[in-house]
Amino acid sequence: MFADKGFDGASLRAIARAAGVDPALVHHYFGNKEGVFVAAMRFPVNPAELLPKVMSAEPGRVGEQFAREFIAIWDDPDKRAPIVAMLRTAMTNERAAALMREFVTSALLDRVAAARDVPLLRLQAAVGQLVGVMIVRHVIRVEPLASASPEELVELLAPTLQRYIDGS
Amino acid sequence: MFADKGFDGASLRAIARAAGVDPALVHHYFGNKEGVFVAAMRFPVNPAELLPKVMSAEPGRVGEQFAREFIAIWDDPDKRAPIVAMLRTAMTNERAAALMREFVTSALLDRVAAARDVPLLRLQAAVGQLVGVMIVRHVIRVEPLASASPEELVELLAPTLQRYIDGS
Repeated sequence: MFADKGFDGASLRAIARAAGVDPALVHHYFGNKEGVFVAAMRFPVNPAELLPKVMSAEPGRVGEQFAREFIAIWDDPDKRAPIVAMLRTAMTNERAAALMREFVTSALLDRVAAARDVPLLRLQAAVGQLVGVMIVRHVIRVEPLASASPEELVELLAPTLQRYIDGS
Repeated sequence: MFADKGFDGASLRAIARAAGVDPALVHHYFGNKEGVFVAAMRFPVNPAELLPKVMSAEPGRVGEQFAREFIAIWDDPDKRAPIVAMLRTAMTNERAAALMREFVTSALLDRVAAARDVPLLRLQAAVGQLVGVMIVRHVIRVEPLASASPEELVELLAPTLQRYIDGS
């Protein structure tokens, strides 16, 4: 369903219909479309659980919390592997890129942008900072970044993320 | 030669010997090992040409110049394609990752770190910022970042890069 219609094109109702079950059942087990996606793609993180953790930080520490949660996910090999696999596929396959783009936009970026009143471009620069550092750390594995402690990275990156979020 | 011995393991002398030519000839045509690598891998940018452009900026504008040069390279499809191809290979193949790691470290990071007295970790955070934004822009193509003008991106990213370089 996601592969055929993309993330935005697949509705919870259509997913239920395709599976031959009641939409209420899908809702009960997966919560929402993101939940179905996360399960179907074996995506290791459910934005519905991650976002409240980041957004509950006090305004001046959102950058720090954002860095901390993101680094913890990538530093866990079981969570990192499916993200890297998805990213790799997106680098060769336009359909996979579109799916990733729609999921990241609908499930993450649009919500944070609205909740914190952050321009999308700034939020994407912040996500780019985190994705890029994680590629340098875990995929190309350049030292000393590859062996830096999570705390060192939080300290290094938090002011950058905070600046993007504050718009300064 | 690079595939067998890695970037650091292949000397100009050994490259010449393997090719059955005089080392002076290799030196004449390629300048140094980076030049041979750039030609062999069809790598679109020669650090020997790029670095002086970035480093010649006045101290307070190195971040801006760094962003400008990097964005111009990635925004050119002919230059971007081989970089994305190399990155893609590095994401699946440890040998390719090692080659990329050694090249980036020896030809770029170590030199800039030494010339500007910037800790490597900070420099790698800056490179991570640029690589990540370019992946969001050109590979996953999330809007509005995908369609932002180079000038908008320079303005957005330059303060981040400058902060890493200044150590503030």
